[in-house]
Amino acid sequence: MVKKKSNVLYAQSGGVTSVINATACGVIETALARQDKINTVFAAINGISGVLREEMTDARKDSMLKIAALRHTPSGAYGSCRYQLQDLHQDDREYRRLVEVFKAHRIAYFLYNGGGDSQDTSYKVSQLAQKLDYPITCIGIPKTIDNDLPATDNCPGFASVAKYVAVSTMEAGLDVASMCDSSTKVFILEVMGRHAGWIAAASGLASRKSGDPPHLILFPEVPFAPGKFLTRVKTFVKRYGYCVIVASEGARDRQGEFLSASRQRDNFGNRQLGGVAPFLADLIKRKTAYKCHWAVADYLQRSARHIASQVDLDQAYALGCAAVDLALQGRQAVMATIRRKSSRPYRWTIGAAPLRQVAKREKKLPDNYISEDGFHISRRCRNYLHPLIQGEAYPPYHQGLPDYARVRRTLVKKKLKPWRSD
Amino acid sequence: MVKKKSNVLYAQSGGVTSVINATACGVIETALARQDKINTVFAAINGISGVLREEMTDARKDSMLKIAALRHTPSGAYGSCRYQLQDLHQDDREYRRLVEVFKAHRIAYFLYNGGGDSQDTSYKVSQLAQKLDYPITCIGIPKTIDNDLPATDNCPGFASVAKYVAVSTMEAGLDVASMCDSSTKVFILEVMGRHAGWIAAASGLASRKSGDPPHLILFPEVPFAPGKFLTRVKTFVKRYGYCVIVASEGARDRQGEFLSASRQRDNFGNRQLGGVAPFLADLIKRKTAYKCHWAVADYLQRSARHIASQVDLDQAYALGCAAVDLALQGRQAVMATIRRKSSRPYRWTIGAAPLRQVAKREKKLPDNYISEDGFHISRRCRNYLHPLIQGEAYPPYHQGLPDYARVRRTLVKKKLKPWRSD
Repeated sequence: MVKKKSNVLYAQSGGVTSVINATACGVIETALARQDKINTVFAAINGISGVLREEMTDARKDSMLKIAALRHTPSGAYGSCRYQLQDLHQDDREYRRLVEVFKAHRIAYFLYNGGGDSQDTSYKVSQLAQKLDYPITCIGIPKTIDNDLPATDNCPGFASVAKYVAVSTMEAGLDVASMCDSSTKVFILEVMGRHAGWIAAASGLASRKSGDPPHLILFPEVPFAPGKFLTRVKTFVKRYGYCVIVASEGARDRQGEFLSASRQRDNFGNRQLGGVAPFLADLIKRKTAYKCHWAVADYLQRSARHIASQVDLDQAYALGCAAVDLALQGRQAVMATIRRKSSRPYRWTIGAAPLRQVAKREKKLPDNYISEDGFHISRRCRNYLHPLIQGEAYPPYHQGLPDYARVRRTLVKKKLKPWRSD
Repeated sequence: MVKKKSNVLYAQSGGVTSVINATACGVIETALARQDKINTVFAAINGISGVLREEMTDARKDSMLKIAALRHTPSGAYGSCRYQLQDLHQDDREYRRLVEVFKAHRIAYFLYNGGGDSQDTSYKVSQLAQKLDYPITCIGIPKTIDNDLPATDNCPGFASVAKYVAVSTMEAGLDVASMCDSSTKVFILEVMGRHAGWIAAASGLASRKSGDPPHLILFPEVPFAPGKFLTRVKTFVKRYGYCVIVASEGARDRQGEFLSASRQRDNFGNRQLGGVAPFLADLIKRKTAYKCHWAVADYLQRSARHIASQVDLDQAYALGCAAVDLALQGRQAVMATIRRKSSRPYRWTIGAAPLRQVAKREKKLPDNYISEDGFHISRRCRNYLHPLIQGEAYPPYHQGLPDYARVRRTLVKKKLKPWRSD
């Protein structure tokens, strides 16, 4: 009698990126090529929630051409989730359910693709292996545009946002430069990044020589000082005719309050419309006579597969492949990582770090990546960021629009009772 | 004695686009190739303001390689302006100054590159030829992302914004689709277009089959009805799990008031728009329990040369060449236009229309381009828009960023007293 082969379960978690599907592609292609050890790859629909609900699709339902097309398709093809598991020691109901699902579908390898919160999930699931005595090999695969995971040099998804933000800042900067004589003098671009200034920092790459936009960058790591900020804005408008500002959504005041939250209500108690960019535009309009424009890139930045970084794409794919290898090697509770071997020339390799060192820890922008005045990036930061945005990984187009793939989400037959979370 | 040859004066006006420099390139390359009739091309610094100030640069100061690079460089390389000339019949001081500048620099051809307000300037300058008896041939060249000029099938700059908005809507739509199970359910993208819904309409191209985003488009041409809108949002969230909305900055309520909060006016007296997306997000949050995200593309959309339409680029360049030809043919007070010969296959040619038919007239989205329920585009609109976004005119890159050109702005020697507008 031939021993039945096991299955891989892959899931996407947290905010999606323009290259997370490239990681899915790496996982699926690598796993399906290992027919000696692996039967198939199941992809959970909507992350760990889908696992609890026993909602999974068999990747073999799609052609290998469709799977290959995931490399150029942004966002989470299988659906993502924002869901935190309970603490195993306090409430093990979810974990017992996971074991049921794993057993029912012969899942021996669980590959979870996400950021800090998601790696916490990966870590918790790996604990399950010991506590509930079920042999599941659990591997984390990094993914976050915020670039705030420890133990890895950078996080897939970030480099493409970095490229998008640097390109957009350069382009919008040229726009303002050509209009400033008689019109807009200040332009503000609000970017993502949560509590870490990595994405805002990437805009600094657009500034290749003195006077190039952006002129001011607002980081979450540097408390916002309105007086100093306004003085700088006026100085740049006088010197160059205009001022381009890139502000992180996580920018805070000296009391640690988010700028975007600080004007939730006006003097009449009415709710104000949020966003750091409109907040700053309002401040500048009230304190100067400058005409202001502002943009909030929001999801456009993290889904902008049309201008993805080739380095980012290569790394996202490679991490997917590596995660399968690590799983088959029996490495337990590790996250695949990017290790930088040199910046010039840029060389990198894949490593692995224990999940317990990764889960729920944020890597902020180091002090020495920020210029002394707190409004720009240092040379060291530039050297770190520069290799990441190299290469343009254009998707194919069909009739003027990107030819993005949609996978089937046909569910595998459920074998268990429905999951009830309450 | 050889008769001295005349010069061309080219200027950029109004909001810039990602392909207006391609028009500049067409003008300069064509004019400099006509050494039998033309001595050189002067480019005004900052539009008509620069002409009044006698601030112009000789295009020959740059290499022809640099001029060629304008084809892939967004925004106004020579600077643009928002400036309205006085009415010639009420105050002719500015016009007498223009004649002085034209005479001093042997300018026989004035080529003005802009939108509706700017074509009004072109028209006024052409009147000067008669009223002040100075032989200046005046040609308008269309340019506006708003696509609201009459007499031309479309306006250079629009098609690239259309492509950017369609691509971005498609990408952000995939993002929301992958997150909606446990997170964001409604996404709103605010786009430009002033009083005309052409740009908002272009987002509709992303929706190629039923259920594809965008689900709702808000046009300036359709009065906003909050109740009907919220009902639609809820229906789509229930049906598809999420709802993507594209809103024009010029969207208005039933009383004709802009939904956006901003009440600033620019130098043309036009209201500065912006802020529809946060307004709608606030409305949805107050009336439903849905998590909302919103983006305001602002200048990112009109400077996004990195994803310009090849058709747009070709037309912008061709119009520059054609304007020189029209000038040399002695056509007075006309604007070069795009004439559509057929949609399938797409064929177009260059035409010309009298400036008096163009100046200060807005071409809004026709009723039959809007779907019956007022929230999407019709098939007719789709057929109009589809050819315009074809082809990806990528710029060259250097070290991960677009290799955009910067022209010299070395001023030609002034021959007149400084201009005093007061």
